[in-house]
Amino acid sequence: MVHPDRYFDPDPAIRKLASELYASVAELPLVCPHGHVDPCLLADNAPFPDPSRLIIIPDHYIFRMLYSQGVRLEDLGIAPLDGGPHEEDSRKIWQVFADHYHLFRGTPTAGWIQHEFESVFGISEKLDGDNAMGIYDQIAAKLLTAEFLPRALFDSFNIETLCTTDAATDDLEFHRRIREDDWEGSVRPTFRPDAVVNILAPGWRDELDKLSACNGRDIAQFGDYIGALESRREYFKSLGATATDHGVFSPYTTRLDPAEADAIFQRALAGEADKNEAKQFAGHMLMEFARMSVEDGLVMQLHPGSWRNHNTSLFEAFGPDMGCDIPVATDYTRNLQPLLARYGSRENFTLVLFTLDESTCSRELAPLAGHYPCLRLGPPWWFQDSREGMTRFRERVTETCGIYNTAGFNDDTRAFPSIPARHDVARRIDANFLSRLVAEHVLEENEAAEMITDLAYNLAKSTYRL
Amino acid sequence: MVHPDRYFDPDPAIRKLASELYASVAELPLVCPHGHVDPCLLADNAPFPDPSRLIIIPDHYIFRMLYSQGVRLEDLGIAPLDGGPHEEDSRKIWQVFADHYHLFRGTPTAGWIQHEFESVFGISEKLDGDNAMGIYDQIAAKLLTAEFLPRALFDSFNIETLCTTDAATDDLEFHRRIREDDWEGSVRPTFRPDAVVNILAPGWRDELDKLSACNGRDIAQFGDYIGALESRREYFKSLGATATDHGVFSPYTTRLDPAEADAIFQRALAGEADKNEAKQFAGHMLMEFARMSVEDGLVMQLHPGSWRNHNTSLFEAFGPDMGCDIPVATDYTRNLQPLLARYGSRENFTLVLFTLDESTCSRELAPLAGHYPCLRLGPPWWFQDSREGMTRFRERVTETCGIYNTAGFNDDTRAFPSIPARHDVARRIDANFLSRLVAEHVLEENEAAEMITDLAYNLAKSTYRL
Amino acid sequence: MVHPDRYFDPDPAIRKLASELYASVAELPLVCPHGHVDPCLLADNAPFPDPSRLIIIPDHYIFRMLYSQGVRLEDLGIAPLDGGPHEEDSRKIWQVFADHYHLFRGTPTAGWIQHEFESVFGISEKLDGDNAMGIYDQIAAKLLTAEFLPRALFDSFNIETLCTTDAATDDLEFHRRIREDDWEGSVRPTFRPDAVVNILAPGWRDELDKLSACNGRDIAQFGDYIGALESRREYFKSLGATATDHGVFSPYTTRLDPAEADAIFQRALAGEADKNEAKQFAGHMLMEFARMSVEDGLVMQLHPGSWRNHNTSLFEAFGPDMGCDIPVATDYTRNLQPLLARYGSRENFTLVLFTLDESTCSRELAPLAGHYPCLRLGPPWWFQDSREGMTRFRERVTETCGIYNTAGFNDDTRAFPSIPARHDVARRIDANFLSRLVAEHVLEENEAAEMITDLAYNLAKSTYRL
Repeated sequence: MVHPDRYFDPDPAIRKLASELYASVAELPLVCPHGHVDPCLLADNAPFPDPSRLIIIPDHYIFRMLYSQGVRLEDLGIAPLDGGPHEEDSRKIWQVFADHYHLFRGTPTAGWIQHEFESVFGISEKLDGDNAMGIYDQIAAKLLTAEFLPRALFDSFNIETLCTTDAATDDLEFHRRIREDDWEGSVRPTFRPDAVVNILAPGWRDELDKLSACNGRDIAQFGDYIGALESRREYFKSLGATATDHGVFSPYTTRLDPAEADAIFQRALAGEADKNEAKQFAGHMLMEFARMSVEDGLVMQLHPGSWRNHNTSLFEAFGPDMGCDIPVATDYTRNLQPLLARYGSRENFTLVLFTLDESTCSRELAPLAGHYPCLRLGPPWWFQDSREGMTRFRERVTETCGIYNTAGFNDDTRAFPSIPARHDVARRIDANFLSRLVAEHVLEENEAAEMITDLAYNLAKSTYRL
Repeated sequence: MVHPDRYFDPDPAIRKLASELYASVAELPLVCPHGHVDPCLLADNAPFPDPSRLIIIPDHYIFRMLYSQGVRLEDLGIAPLDGGPHEEDSRKIWQVFADHYHLFRGTPTAGWIQHEFESVFGISEKLDGDNAMGIYDQIAAKLLTAEFLPRALFDSFNIETLCTTDAATDDLEFHRRIREDDWEGSVRPTFRPDAVVNILAPGWRDELDKLSACNGRDIAQFGDYIGALESRREYFKSLGATATDHGVFSPYTTRLDPAEADAIFQRALAGEADKNEAKQFAGHMLMEFARMSVEDGLVMQLHPGSWRNHNTSLFEAFGPDMGCDIPVATDYTRNLQPLLARYGSRENFTLVLFTLDESTCSRELAPLAGHYPCLRLGPPWWFQDSREGMTRFRERVTETCGIYNTAGFNDDTRAFPSIPARHDVARRIDANFLSRLVAEHVLEENEAAEMITDLAYNLAKSTYRL
Repeated sequence: MVHPDRYFDPDPAIRKLASELYASVAELPLVCPHGHVDPCLLADNAPFPDPSRLIIIPDHYIFRMLYSQGVRLEDLGIAPLDGGPHEEDSRKIWQVFADHYHLFRGTPTAGWIQHEFESVFGISEKLDGDNAMGIYDQIAAKLLTAEFLPRALFDSFNIETLCTTDAATDDLEFHRRIREDDWEGSVRPTFRPDAVVNILAPGWRDELDKLSACNGRDIAQFGDYIGALESRREYFKSLGATATDHGVFSPYTTRLDPAEADAIFQRALAGEADKNEAKQFAGHMLMEFARMSVEDGLVMQLHPGSWRNHNTSLFEAFGPDMGCDIPVATDYTRNLQPLLARYGSRENFTLVLFTLDESTCSRELAPLAGHYPCLRLGPPWWFQDSREGMTRFRERVTETCGIYNTAGFNDDTRAFPSIPARHDVARRIDANFLSRLVAEHVLEENEAAEMITDLAYNLAKSTYRL
């Protein structure tokens, strides 16, 4: 059911070479420098729950599509914040998913699921309303076996390194336990300080208190705050971190003088900061984080341009991450100028830029990455982590910045068993892209052979210093 | 001359399947839920005038291209507002068109015309300066026969339903006559209230008076105005309407409290409203129209992003719809947030979004449509109603929102005899898109077979509740 | 090494026809209406310096890519403004380039260089670290021969006309010498007044003084300034100019009344103009330049949307044109409305629009060009002057404005020996684009045969009045 030539152009010349290029990297280890797997999974190594709790309930790619066609989140097992009624029978949830499975036709989700069914669970049927319970039973049975414990899957997936994403105030206890155990798997934290930077977020003061507690020192001045963040970065590094991640609405950067920064910080402490101050503060903090990266060598990642919790009614009822984050047009050229002019040519600095606004790829991102030494372009993110999205990305950036200013692949997922499927798509699409270039005599075969290995493996390792 | 495999990828595997998929839907009835055919045509059922008055003079796709290469509108038979001299000899106009016919190479207009010539008028030659008069004569002769009366064409085109676009103040007399006649054709009005919403438009007061007259009641307060609009919607429904249409410059939405709305309304009545008030009023009215749709079930269509009458010199001389409406960058994520958060998940609500700014397809529209239950994406509109435009649309949105959050095809035309040609292009391009996905093993053939019927027929019917 | 079918789709039907269409225009003379070759080269006709000084040091496409991967500009022979140390050994520079040559895989630079190596210098090897010195020697030897003098190359390249780009205050001495010599080559200046228009630029007063000196008259009032510019345009025309060029950050246009324009001019003279005044002034000057073009027939070119010298640190150390000009999102619809409404339908006026923001192609540029008689769309510029960039351009604009509202090809280069390679790419991509349309039965072969000649040759000549 999963075709060996899937995602390759039907032109025979392209398909043959794409298939060969792909085969040359299909067995390479998976480097996963950016993702959202819960480290608890690998620390505890407990069996996965049932199929619905593994595959549907945590995956906003899936439930957003069902929601868009009128399925209620409650019927998919998602609990409202007020604890109101919601389906708890995983079989019923699975049946709803199966009954609507046709909605995913032509989407990456359908491809990932089919690949996961087949290569992880040995199921080659396509899910539908009729076979739903049979497939549920097969998966459920597998999940009870030792081969399907998280660490066993990690090993069988051939994951070389898996980086998680962790709040700046996280104690990294799960990471510590993983390192202390005698299991060999390489799992690393990533420093994500968003919650302590957004001074207007309702929970900011609490986060600040946690940050203070982490370091055992009061944070009364802006200088204390910076010191606390630097100290946390050291702690993350001590547990294997090589990168930070910054999810911002706008990539605006600006340089405040210390007195200005402290003045805004004091107003934030007093709960009096306004929107513009929050923007200036966030813009200044990106500059500070760049400076810290220059100093401590942590690779900086920037994920801008998503309006979080756009459906405020749903947000109020269910909380965040309910599939209603919507991208906006994003400007990199103007917003990043202060940061790049100051740090963009520093030797020890790597900044990986992501986008949800594809119009910036050829217009801004490739020209920036083809100039500034610090820059690498992250792989197509979220809605663009797909056959067409990846193809458009390569077509739009390669001519201006080549492949060597791109960062290889990230799976960026919390859906642990879908990791091999996601790398597989990327390797196939890159192989297909390169083989078209060979067929059109832009590249020679020996060049493409080197490039596919760089794209599938080397670039992720070198960009993230793994 | 019109090749049976036109618009299909030359790759043999893709072409063969595309051809089969297309064949499976080629004879399905045409569902036309959005267009600009004058209902008078079908009410009167009078013979069409000559070829130039049928094909050239009413079609801004055609005369804008000729104008762009230096042909004067007067020479194409278009009368200046001051009644100044303009060509009235339809043969001369046709000759100018034919002499410049090469300008349309590679454009959808050329494809539509050739298809119309061949399948409607039985002419397989390509128009040029030499055969212009011969072709003119053939068409002119046909137009005098009974088979070429509007209703006969409607029937022979296999149109299942044709929706027109009608001002909120229209008496729908032509629609009433069509329904009262013993002809079976299904023709429905669409409620388009733009002229009574744009409080800065010079004719607004007149439109308001007409609206008042329609209902036989004074409109002194904002509440009267809302009531009058609701009443008109009921009237439209009584004559078969299932949808409304809103052509706005920006899809800005906002919620005013009743006192604010009335205050602006009073200033508008006094001729004192300013630009910002007009924007707030329009933004509030989109919210009101959404609320009305939730209540009365009329499908809401939103067509934003066109700067109307950009060439103000030409507008002053010739009036609107002279081919100089130019798109602008459009933001949906921010602008629609108030409306979607409030009404986007309401059960009885359907909102069809259109765009002229393709950069929003993957960035905003597909993510929105893949979440909000109310949303369906309208087909590529106007300049994108074309081979490449439709292909880009499917490539950019399908991976994020699937095909089931799209609205099927609209021909959106006032060029009645081009209707079959337009549906034919869409069916072919969708067939080609799906067959590429099958060839790349993204879809299976049986899935594509269902999907092409959905795209060609079912989605338009279900979206528009026909 | 340079494959005869390069850049053609591997589909046999497309490739065969593309190859035939290409062959039909491959030997046509090169029309070069816009570029940056130094006229001194052709006036002096001195031998080119060594390979590094010919190929690397002047080409920001090349050194920006090396810089992006950590190579210092000094190591590529580029002198800091302070005269600090930099590599002067051309062999060492060439070796660095060769050692990093893999970075250009998949970029147009690699294609241009390989074509130039093979067709100009007879070298078919691909450059690498091992063969670097051998290739250097071969090129260096050729550069000493009479066949490689600039005029000999110009003739052997079959250049019909080459337009340079020259400051408004340039004395055009080199152009005069070229015309006075008995060499037949057609070399024409282009009037580029940017430096005298940007009233905030540090050198503006000096430029104004030069402008004054050119005409031998004081410039005390705005009227003097306009007169001086008109007079320079006449001078440029007398030496063969047919066009002007305007590189602006934004294509904003506005009409000031004479008193306002003079008031800003007086404040600029006093060094007191602010940013907004500079914007109003620039916007008004675009209107003035359009008016002048209506009057004197010089074709106006507009190149907006590049943030110059984005890396201000690098700019301070090395000056402009160091590969760090970065595009920004650009609005044409709003910004050009005043100019187009006023002059867009005037008979003697041609305005060629360029963009670095591809999202404007289908949204704004093609709709504008498909209406306004004055408009022609310039070829894909700079980062988009490439296989994929050109293909996207044709796909996005042709359906709306056809090919006859486009301006043919510009090589836009200062890299003189790469000129044939650049035209070759454009001719191949256009041939490939047309042959796909034939294969998909959008065009007939005889139409494509005419169109390829128009794209490769006729449109550039007619647009630029050459």
